[in-house]
Amino acid sequence: MSEVIATYRLFDKGGQFEKKAESIALGLTIGSWTDLPHLEQEQLKKHKGRVVSIKETGRETIEGREADITIAYPAANFSADLPAILVTVFGKLSLDGVIRLIDLDFSSNLAKWFPGPKFGVQGIRELTGAYDRPLVMSIFKGVIGRDLSYMEKQLKGQLDGGIDIVKDDEILFENKLTPFEERLKLGKQVIAESGKKALYAVNLTGRTCDLKEKARRGIELGATAYLFNVFAYGLDMLQELAEDRDIPVPIMAHPALSGAFTSAPHHGISTELMLGKLVRMAGADFTLFPSPYGSVALERPAALGIAEMALEDSMYKQTFPVPSAGIHPGLVPVLYDDFGMNSIINAGGGVHGHPNGAAGGGRAFRQAVDAVVAGQTIEEAAQQHEDLRVAFELWGTGK
Amino acid sequence: MSEVIATYRLFDKGGQFEKKAESIALGLTIGSWTDLPHLEQEQLKKHKGRVVSIKETGRETIEGREADITIAYPAANFSADLPAILVTVFGKLSLDGVIRLIDLDFSSNLAKWFPGPKFGVQGIRELTGAYDRPLVMSIFKGVIGRDLSYMEKQLKGQLDGGIDIVKDDEILFENKLTPFEERLKLGKQVIAESGKKALYAVNLTGRTCDLKEKARRGIELGATAYLFNVFAYGLDMLQELAEDRDIPVPIMAHPALSGAFTSAPHHGISTELMLGKLVRMAGADFTLFPSPYGSVALERPAALGIAEMALEDSMYKQTFPVPSAGIHPGLVPVLYDDFGMNSIINAGGGVHGHPNGAAGGGRAFRQAVDAVVAGQTIEEAAQQHEDLRVAFELWGTGK
Repeated sequence: MSEVIATYRLFDKGGQFEKKAESIALGLTIGSWTDLPHLEQEQLKKHKGRVVSIKETGRETIEGREADITIAYPAANFSADLPAILVTVFGKLSLDGVIRLIDLDFSSNLAKWFPGPKFGVQGIRELTGAYDRPLVMSIFKGVIGRDLSYMEKQLKGQLDGGIDIVKDDEILFENKLTPFEERLKLGKQVIAESGKKALYAVNLTGRTCDLKEKARRGIELGATAYLFNVFAYGLDMLQELAEDRDIPVPIMAHPALSGAFTSAPHHGISTELMLGKLVRMAGADFTLFPSPYGSVALERPAALGIAEMALEDSMYKQTFPVPSAGIHPGLVPVLYDDFGMNSIINAGGGVHGHPNGAAGGGRAFRQAVDAVVAGQTIEEAAQQHEDLRVAFELWGTGK
Repeated sequence: MSEVIATYRLFDKGGQFEKKAESIALGLTIGSWTDLPHLEQEQLKKHKGRVVSIKETGRETIEGREADITIAYPAANFSADLPAILVTVFGKLSLDGVIRLIDLDFSSNLAKWFPGPKFGVQGIRELTGAYDRPLVMSIFKGVIGRDLSYMEKQLKGQLDGGIDIVKDDEILFENKLTPFEERLKLGKQVIAESGKKALYAVNLTGRTCDLKEKARRGIELGATAYLFNVFAYGLDMLQELAEDRDIPVPIMAHPALSGAFTSAPHHGISTELMLGKLVRMAGADFTLFPSPYGSVALERPAALGIAEMALEDSMYKQTFPVPSAGIHPGLVPVLYDDFGMNSIINAGGGVHGHPNGAAGGGRAFRQAVDAVVAGQTIEEAAQQHEDLRVAFELWGTGK
């Protein structure tokens, strides 16, 4: 049967999980059951929510005993889109006290509704020519209030340093100094002059109903990738962009605003589900999330969980996990240990703050990546590479 | 100066609020300041975030000492849309530990970017012909898996009972038994036959980029109002619909999914800001939210706060507050006390579960409303009105 199975984490001081689970399964589908005449039960059976399991975790929390309950929602109840599914499984329920949506499982005929990434890990390796190593990404820094020449200098430095993908800051919007179209033209030109296969992910922003048209226009101007603040617009808008054949570039899902519903321990929606599973289904080629190491940090299991969902076997292409924030070259070994080959090392200050400039920062990252992939320690590599040695002097070796 | 001023609630075991506030004001705007040469400071001054105030509340919470800090973000940094503003003020910051966005203030030249409600309280009174009293709304019940004849019977009953506005359940999506277009035709016909000025808010659902076109098509078929799961699509999509002149009907913002980011006490975004201030700016004519009385309940200050922001003096028309869930006729006096004349009394089970059917339930609500507006007690009114008396027998008088 076609259905979505939702897993919720519930808390109950009385531990009446069975009753609660039944009330959810009915309340979010056909409303009532036992009072219905037999004929109506027959008619409504295929629309009825079903309690699949109730598992107490054994943990006692400040909110009471904890249990994970799973409920199956028949696909007959909703249309083939994420807004309908999310409203069904967590619309009203999100308002119902202490409860957290921790997973969604889609039967395979439902999963087929969703596109997944257009390019995925393999496609992005082909676009960048970067095989057999984690990719290196960096972010323009401090560009608000600056003009195109400032960005040009940064972009050249980053590409000179061997950065594979450069992205806009997510808070860079349409503005007079560095308009979207001018940034794109600049990016196209600087990448062409560099002779490299780098990508520049420009921030796709503005009003919802203009996004597709703006993205298509950007393609004509040479856009190679888009950064997208998906949680400001909804997952379905990401899917709309991913499905559009006239937008044939990878899309990078930024986690901005997602903390509003993922950060509280007992409410909201799990980080892994949102930034791992759902952005992948909706079509993100990259998913950015806070690394477990920086100042804006995600707990390690959540960060690893995102990467797992982004890469696990499924009918979709793989989404590149991009653990971000607080990354410097000394963290490359732990990033490689935690996230492996199919991940992207992403830095802002760790590139631009390098004493040899963005080019030096880029080189230091590439040297660290080459070392860990070759099984060398980064300390050994630093003996051969000045940029890496200088980075360690500034930021340490992450130990 | 054009700016948005954000108020955050912070928690700190060390109480270093000044340092944190400064790091937010810089980190979410130009990045750095004190290290910059004087010339660059001059150039960037108008983009720099500014700490406006830091006020410790005096409360000690489980997360540490509590303070409300306000930060001003120059409008020069973002484009004229809510996605850009929300990403600026709470994008990355939402991921930064224990922090809650509790208010946003827009300077008046920014507030003008937003449409506010097309109809508002006064416009809806004109559309429904209901003056000098709270309006009464009800919801189709248990319609998943049912056909049009089932809805027709419910709709007739509700209109017979004097219900002003009938709305779809928010989990009723495009489906074969009761398709959007057929529901609209049915609604148009039943309302016309009733001879009343009632509204039927049909659930506007589907893929993001189809919504406008679908809403316009609905208008041709006689749509009188739209229900919209705004938080499944983003506030900007609500604004797109509100601004569209070819969608000349009121829009009802449903709070589905909003609990994911409003319910936790120390994270996310305040309920009043989202369901009161921002949905009004974006153009909601009605805002639905859990009443403080039912099983799915909002705390009373939050519910009252929503109504206050929906109705307070501003450059926008007023949004009708619709406290919902668990409402029966016995609660009309407390609803009237708490939410006053300009509110909507909204019930599902409290209408359909009435022993005299939906018509009886509707009459009971209207009788209770007439009583409280006339300064009569509902107990007095029940002596004259059989439907009201029967409702009290079933659900009590809310005392």
